[in-house]
Amino acid sequence: MKLIRFGVPGAEKPGIATATGNFDVSAFGEDFGEKFFETDGLTRLAQWWEKHAKDCPAVPAGTRLGSAVARPSKIICIGLNYADHAKETNAPIPKEPIVFFKSTSALVGPNDDLIIPRGSQKTDWEVELVVVIGKKASYVEEKDAMDYIAGYCLHNDYSEREFQLERNGQWVKGKSNDTFAPLGPWMATKDEIKDVHNLRLWLTVNGKKMQDGTTANLIFSLPFLVSYLSQFMTLLPGDVISTGTPAGVGLGMNPPVYLKPGDVIELGIDGLGSSKQTAVAYKANNS
Amino acid sequence: MKLIRFGVPGAEKPGIATATGNFDVSAFGEDFGEKFFETDGLTRLAQWWEKHAKDCPAVPAGTRLGSAVARPSKIICIGLNYADHAKETNAPIPKEPIVFFKSTSALVGPNDDLIIPRGSQKTDWEVELVVVIGKKASYVEEKDAMDYIAGYCLHNDYSEREFQLERNGQWVKGKSNDTFAPLGPWMATKDEIKDVHNLRLWLTVNGKKMQDGTTANLIFSLPFLVSYLSQFMTLLPGDVISTGTPAGVGLGMNPPVYLKPGDVIELGIDGLGSSKQTAVAYKANNS
Repeated sequence: MKLIRFGVPGAEKPGIATATGNFDVSAFGEDFGEKFFETDGLTRLAQWWEKHAKDCPAVPAGTRLGSAVARPSKIICIGLNYADHAKETNAPIPKEPIVFFKSTSALVGPNDDLIIPRGSQKTDWEVELVVVIGKKASYVEEKDAMDYIAGYCLHNDYSEREFQLERNGQWVKGKSNDTFAPLGPWMATKDEIKDVHNLRLWLTVNGKKMQDGTTANLIFSLPFLVSYLSQFMTLLPGDVISTGTPAGVGLGMNPPVYLKPGDVIELGIDGLGSSKQTAVAYKANNS
Repeated sequence: MKLIRFGVPGAEKPGIATATGNFDVSAFGEDFGEKFFETDGLTRLAQWWEKHAKDCPAVPAGTRLGSAVARPSKIICIGLNYADHAKETNAPIPKEPIVFFKSTSALVGPNDDLIIPRGSQKTDWEVELVVVIGKKASYVEEKDAMDYIAGYCLHNDYSEREFQLERNGQWVKGKSNDTFAPLGPWMATKDEIKDVHNLRLWLTVNGKKMQDGTTANLIFSLPFLVSYLSQFMTLLPGDVISTGTPAGVGLGMNPPVYLKPGDVIELGIDGLGSSKQTAVAYKANNS
């Protein structure tokens, strides 16, 4: 299944994306959040869909999509998880994962505008594969870790490099502005993706290819990451892990290149669709 | 008012603490979370309490307390916000606030056991004053920032120093284990605290005084912090900001001193009550 959320920001409805279009599954009665995943919602929804698909209204073309999953308890991000990206930022290959958080208030739909924060000069892009946690995970062994994954999404882990690196410590400061986490278009359930460690991921700015990588180059694999993180914190159903970005971010250019109002950013991952954001300047009340 | 939450973990009920005991305000019908604060719950509860206090059942003595507020969208922590603590950890005085997150899954009641994580050798304590956000805050000016604060709590920002400092980057890794955020006993509304920048805060381990400071020594004041953070992320109603710890943590001792099973940690802040945790070893299924 491919789960979507659509409609007005803050009041999104659940839907399912299919080869013949998007369908409204509001009648199922649950949003795609912690409680849904915790109570085996994926199985229940699949069974419900089998019976009710024919009665589900189509979502009109052009309808806004929201974040593919509802606001999770946390967005965990992995830093420097592709060797080529570590190299371009002059950072050593990590011996163990670098972990930081992103405020969940940064979540938006996959095609919503990117708001460049007030005073920002260094807003940057990062195409990433996201893991959505399916059940509570604490001290999980690597061999069992895939059982704790519900599915995958496309994510652009927007980053303000001055806020992240030059404002005195801890990256969360440059990762958390509103609209810095467009998630979707959909969450693909685990069974939809044949080999999650062999997916191409790419990103363009104004049509120019900036990132073009493959999850085959992940330094730390998904089961390793889930197991590793679960030693330091309990992962809750619906939690989001953003697994790092390949080479080609603006910070890595010589000289660095950052986003400005009017820029159009497009990105995609095999099997997880594509998304498109337009950068706009911050104005009071547009966030 | 002093808000409490009491009862079974995960199913806490709302209450009010008074000079004559704790009272159950379940009949008010709302937990003390984002929606409550967002909809001016404090004013509504005060009005309700005026009419219904006499009908509210007493909470039996010895009843477990939960976290004083319901799970927020985020727990933001400020690093090295007391000059004496920066000095003891050999860190320079920050030029601007150091910001990190703590997983909200770490929240527990003020007197719940502290679970020392599996493999941990360096679990440490940090008495801190917490600010609870009362309304959505984005790009707030310092002069207006106190308007965005709902109240204050006592917090022990437990920290695993190896996970935080020796495991390759970003402090969140050492701040997020289950039970690392006992919050309470109560949230005092802003009007209950005469001068929040002149409160004594202290912590003992097995009866021995380890920390004894005052919020008069905060490097960055509460309105500065709220304003500052709101430039980097939107603060949501019910969000928690832990404002840093004074000198006297285990890491700062020579040689360092860390917690072991059986240790009893007590802490308090003027007007915000005291809490007491007993350290226990991690066992499968005790978290």
